[in-house]
Amino acid sequence: MTQRYKATIAYDGAAYAGWQVQPGQCTVQGECERVLHEITRESIRVHSSGRTDSGVHARAQVAHFDLSSKVTPGKFKLSLNALLDDDIRVTSLAPVSSSFHARFSAVKKEYRYFIWNNRIVPPHLRRYRLQFSRGLDIDKMRRAAARLVGHHDFESFCSHRGKADENTVRNLLELNVRKKGNEFTIIAVSEGFLYKMVRSLAGFLLRVGSGRIPVEETDDILNARVRNELIPSAKPHGLFLWKVSYR
Amino acid sequence: MTQRYKATIAYDGAAYAGWQVQPGQCTVQGECERVLHEITRESIRVHSSGRTDSGVHARAQVAHFDLSSKVTPGKFKLSLNALLDDDIRVTSLAPVSSSFHARFSAVKKEYRYFIWNNRIVPPHLRRYRLQFSRGLDIDKMRRAAARLVGHHDFESFCSHRGKADENTVRNLLELNVRKKGNEFTIIAVSEGFLYKMVRSLAGFLLRVGSGRIPVEETDDILNARVRNELIPSAKPHGLFLWKVSYR
Repeated sequence: MTQRYKATIAYDGAAYAGWQVQPGQCTVQGECERVLHEITRESIRVHSSGRTDSGVHARAQVAHFDLSSKVTPGKFKLSLNALLDDDIRVTSLAPVSSSFHARFSAVKKEYRYFIWNNRIVPPHLRRYRLQFSRGLDIDKMRRAAARLVGHHDFESFCSHRGKADENTVRNLLELNVRKKGNEFTIIAVSEGFLYKMVRSLAGFLLRVGSGRIPVEETDDILNARVRNELIPSAKPHGLFLWKVSYR
Repeated sequence: MTQRYKATIAYDGAAYAGWQVQPGQCTVQGECERVLHEITRESIRVHSSGRTDSGVHARAQVAHFDLSSKVTPGKFKLSLNALLDDDIRVTSLAPVSSSFHARFSAVKKEYRYFIWNNRIVPPHLRRYRLQFSRGLDIDKMRRAAARLVGHHDFESFCSHRGKADENTVRNLLELNVRKKGNEFTIIAVSEGFLYKMVRSLAGFLLRVGSGRIPVEETDDILNARVRNELIPSAKPHGLFLWKVSYR
């Protein structure tokens, strides 16, 4: 009888080519599967709530995997963390029903994008903040963000991975901007995101906030349903997968 | 006519053998002097408020140096930051009177020591927090800290660098402990600190907080004026030179 386990995983994405296993690359999934093999001597597949791109961090990615026998979660978590590099931590581990699926059971996901709005980023934050020098008008950013919340075709705010016929309609539940001192945080919540969607939304909001795109053009850009050069993908190192919610 | 400049410098100490120039070692002072030489083609000595140990970080170290001609501080700061690695940033630069001395004009210094009181440190904080698993009683830590504030001989809380006859009396203006979630912060303010004093105070308070040293023994340990094995130096990566104050 196999037993399914749900793991919450935090990682610093800097050293990894993203979550998903890729030949010849160091990935977070690959590292998790490597240490599971080291402990159990079995080939165990780890399924996450979704891939994160190269360089993107996670505060609380969620994954599941099946073990051929029951283990003590607390001890097993210790073993995993002892074998993983310290840029990946299993923060919680618990047995779940075999009907639980990290991706398909997820009801919503939250990402946070962190920006340091000053020419100089404090050195201890440099790996986790996008440096942005131009002044940012948070009111404009919030007004543009509000226009994007809801059910829309987000074709203008994604990249395709060779899947031209993909359904690009998503329900954006929340898109918010917070400010504290020099730090701006963009918070995006959805049932599911498209490839590079959060970084495109962040890139767009930075252009609105710095006055390069008028707030009023938001609807036109959304309705054009075509990616244009006005919407860059913000760099990955400011982005954290913050939370995955389940029923 | 030389002109003196006051610089505020932030750094991630991980890659450096501390502030002070040492033969064959990479140091923060060495890096600052290297880029000053690169810009001016002169040998310029950079004097800080005091050395920081290997691996210790600074939010706001203060230093001064003399240039043989006046420069535009904003532009000169940009040049320095362009040549420095991104783990050292000059955050402010201003001309000062030749009577200003980064070390001798300083009236007090503040250090902060950061502890993550949980078995698992979030990966993005791992380089800047001491991981500490045992439970901590903040009330005990505060009571012990209060007994150390004031003019005392801190011989029990320092290391000597081959200077056995050093005056070890210091005026500890503040020693406080704050808690927010899993994070404990020890704040120490003094007119001047002894070698490894802040890390010794942190190591001591951690032992008090975890119940290994009773609060009541604080006075005896202080009055013994001898370093003992009960007082370890906490690791450098949790420590930040936070602020240097001038009249």
